[in-house]
Amino acid sequence: MTVQTPVATPLSAALLDRFKALVGPKGWSQDPDIIAPHLREPRDLYAGISPLLLRPANTEEVAAIVKMARETKTKLVPQGGNTGLVGGSIPFMGNDEIILSLQRMNRIRSLDALNDTITVEAGVVLAQVQQAAREADRLFPLSIGSEGSCTIGGNLSTNAGGNAVLRYGNTRELALGLEVVLADGQVWDGLRGLRKDNTGYDLKDLFIGGEGTLGIITAAVLKLHPLPRAMATAFTAVPNPAAAIELLSMAKTATGGQVTGFELISRRSLEFALKHNPGTVDPVAEPHPWYVLMEFSSGRNDGAIGETMEALLADGFEKALVLDAAIAQSDGQRAAFWKLRELLSDSQRPEGGSIKCDISVPVSKMAEFIDRATAAVEAHVPGVRIVAFGHIGDGNVHFNASQPVGWERAKFLELWDKVHAIVHDIAHGMQGSISAEHGVGRMKIDEIVHYKSPVEIEMMRKLKRAFDPDNILNPGKVVRP
Amino acid sequence: MTVQTPVATPLSAALLDRFKALVGPKGWSQDPDIIAPHLREPRDLYAGISPLLLRPANTEEVAAIVKMARETKTKLVPQGGNTGLVGGSIPFMGNDEIILSLQRMNRIRSLDALNDTITVEAGVVLAQVQQAAREADRLFPLSIGSEGSCTIGGNLSTNAGGNAVLRYGNTRELALGLEVVLADGQVWDGLRGLRKDNTGYDLKDLFIGGEGTLGIITAAVLKLHPLPRAMATAFTAVPNPAAAIELLSMAKTATGGQVTGFELISRRSLEFALKHNPGTVDPVAEPHPWYVLMEFSSGRNDGAIGETMEALLADGFEKALVLDAAIAQSDGQRAAFWKLRELLSDSQRPEGGSIKCDISVPVSKMAEFIDRATAAVEAHVPGVRIVAFGHIGDGNVHFNASQPVGWERAKFLELWDKVHAIVHDIAHGMQGSISAEHGVGRMKIDEIVHYKSPVEIEMMRKLKRAFDPDNILNPGKVVRP
Repeated sequence: MTVQTPVATPLSAALLDRFKALVGPKGWSQDPDIIAPHLREPRDLYAGISPLLLRPANTEEVAAIVKMARETKTKLVPQGGNTGLVGGSIPFMGNDEIILSLQRMNRIRSLDALNDTITVEAGVVLAQVQQAAREADRLFPLSIGSEGSCTIGGNLSTNAGGNAVLRYGNTRELALGLEVVLADGQVWDGLRGLRKDNTGYDLKDLFIGGEGTLGIITAAVLKLHPLPRAMATAFTAVPNPAAAIELLSMAKTATGGQVTGFELISRRSLEFALKHNPGTVDPVAEPHPWYVLMEFSSGRNDGAIGETMEALLADGFEKALVLDAAIAQSDGQRAAFWKLRELLSDSQRPEGGSIKCDISVPVSKMAEFIDRATAAVEAHVPGVRIVAFGHIGDGNVHFNASQPVGWERAKFLELWDKVHAIVHDIAHGMQGSISAEHGVGRMKIDEIVHYKSPVEIEMMRKLKRAFDPDNILNPGKVVRP
Repeated sequence: MTVQTPVATPLSAALLDRFKALVGPKGWSQDPDIIAPHLREPRDLYAGISPLLLRPANTEEVAAIVKMARETKTKLVPQGGNTGLVGGSIPFMGNDEIILSLQRMNRIRSLDALNDTITVEAGVVLAQVQQAAREADRLFPLSIGSEGSCTIGGNLSTNAGGNAVLRYGNTRELALGLEVVLADGQVWDGLRGLRKDNTGYDLKDLFIGGEGTLGIITAAVLKLHPLPRAMATAFTAVPNPAAAIELLSMAKTATGGQVTGFELISRRSLEFALKHNPGTVDPVAEPHPWYVLMEFSSGRNDGAIGETMEALLADGFEKALVLDAAIAQSDGQRAAFWKLRELLSDSQRPEGGSIKCDISVPVSKMAEFIDRATAAVEAHVPGVRIVAFGHIGDGNVHFNASQPVGWERAKFLELWDKVHAIVHDIAHGMQGSISAEHGVGRMKIDEIVHYKSPVEIEMMRKLKRAFDPDNILNPGKVVRP
């Protein structure tokens, strides 16, 4: 696999040699085959070119690289597991950006069980953080589809969300401290494991969600939680999203905030998953228009959480908010329910082109949003198949449009901008977000200027200019200086 | 009461008139008696002078004031309930700062029960936010001693902590969106009620904890939680802080994260409270060196949370982590336990001078910190009486020193800086914070320069210069530009 095209780099061989000299022989590559996977992303929406891949082994090497980039005004594209969906980790086509992969910085530096913290380097894969926590009888709750290959540095840089936000928050809420290499090559040691520290401005949250444009996160102190002792999981048929939201509110109260999963799934989403994944089974006997995959967690393994769920479902049934439900009777069944949820996204692929929107609105407006956006897109593209699912407990839905049957994929994808505009206008009108989880990257750098106030964009520009005055850190992503 | 001294203000009468013209007749005062309470703070450590108190009625008036301040380079001191403990809301003695009180902006703009949010103006008193949430069958968990008079704008500006951080986080974690008047008088409408929004840099967290030095918070969207249906509360005698920390870890696991209070109380702290507050009773029969006020909450009122607590105490007793315990048998008894906790701080007053430190360290180092800091202060001041209590579930202890019996108050207070240095050096050496909850204000503006790295101070200065280039917003607080 080679995507490098023979574009001459404006970066001289001498300059590249200076960067290479900063890291050991394992710390760089100019082999197009090795560089290639760093130049494309999961949905193949973006591709770029780069003359050099740097893979520093430690913070000092990162600092030396950034210092030289600053001196020589060389652009850097920081990269973790390269699983992002908005092109934030992909260079442009100018062949003048160096890729800075953090993947070799993959040490778990320490775990403090009494403090409920783990200190990890940016390149540690998310699943390994989860695993290390579990081994210490703790939970690191961040849970996303790409957890087997995404890195914690990428999760932090994009403030990743996922399935457990409802109970535990986004990545931002899971990070207590950071180590960051700033744009001048200085290292900020903010690796504090404190729950309370009011000694000045909140610096870490600039870098979390900053997509590598303000500094490069090299390590973090993350918060751990008690490992739940019992879960109750139900695949629940509901008449519509409004009923799901009411059920959510009842569930939050009934459990005192122990709802750890609340995923909306439309019938069509489920059908695609069942159709394209042999061996999967519909959890509920009859088809229904909407489902909720609902999970509660408890610290006590005494059956109480199961009873709470049963009582809630009975209550919901009486109020016609629940049509049917399957409660997982084993870990295997629980895993099967979640597997269906995870398959939803990829199961759109065999159905042709898909235009994906990553929306959030206030939870109370979720149902209205889905209704209005569905009607508007269907009116614009007759025959389009809306595939809606996601974390409605957080007011976040992956509102996707699969192409009408029989269309050409490319023809449908030409409607990308128009469909985005329709959906984003509706979300924006409800004080929603046009990128709930995935960030800005290259994809939405212009669109956020359209939807945000000039005041807000100007604040972002001020930050970019103050922290990266030479625009060397991931230029062309998030905001232009 | 008049603290104004006849210092001529460098601000001309004509200039003051221009500010007065921006607000209605209720919007300003130059009456020294009316201004006086705005010039002193609870501990009487700081006092200032001001020629004018402005009390704008709405965001537009705040914006007009700041705009004029920017044009005329006039300094503003934003103020909420004026309950802060580090002089952050008090002007200096130059009589050239205008006090900008947000207290008239006290409307609850809306409450969205399905979205679990409430939108409030900066001047709403914390207790009123709590009350409004309760009326909607929700919990606004922020809980601090001054909740009857502090305002939510002040809570946000100082990122207030308090008793419920362990479960619900600091004020930062309770705010989803802000409305802020920037230093040029522009209004940033960031009043979003979204759980997920990754469309750019995290701006709100700059203003939260910014102590009014980067912008003036005029309104906020706050997160609500389910109102607990059942509580279990125990006043628990433990042999030492290390045992308390172990008990905490067991409690977190046993409840699956439903520990909502975990307050350490030393015997001496309790004795002062019992001695100076007639009618209070020692909850536990025999005296013990240390106590923990421990509270669990549950969404289900079925007795299960009480059983969990009893089981935990039995387990702790067996492991010699618990010496004795009184479980609250009624709401009245529960309130009495918490009342004792709230009395601790004021009960030091009749014992003479007190030097107070607001420390956090990693939870795992809490016990070592208390031991070392106690020994060090006792060595420096023979006869000193250490009064330690606080939120050790967050690694935060109010480590206070009451004067030796028989000393002059003033003589003891001369040791303020030295005692702070001793205690702060030890906390800093453990990667702790010298201001866990109270902020920087005037008190610690120089001290943080001593303890923070130059890299970090320079980042703070960059932010101050970028957001308030004329240094008109609360100058001399947090950081110098």
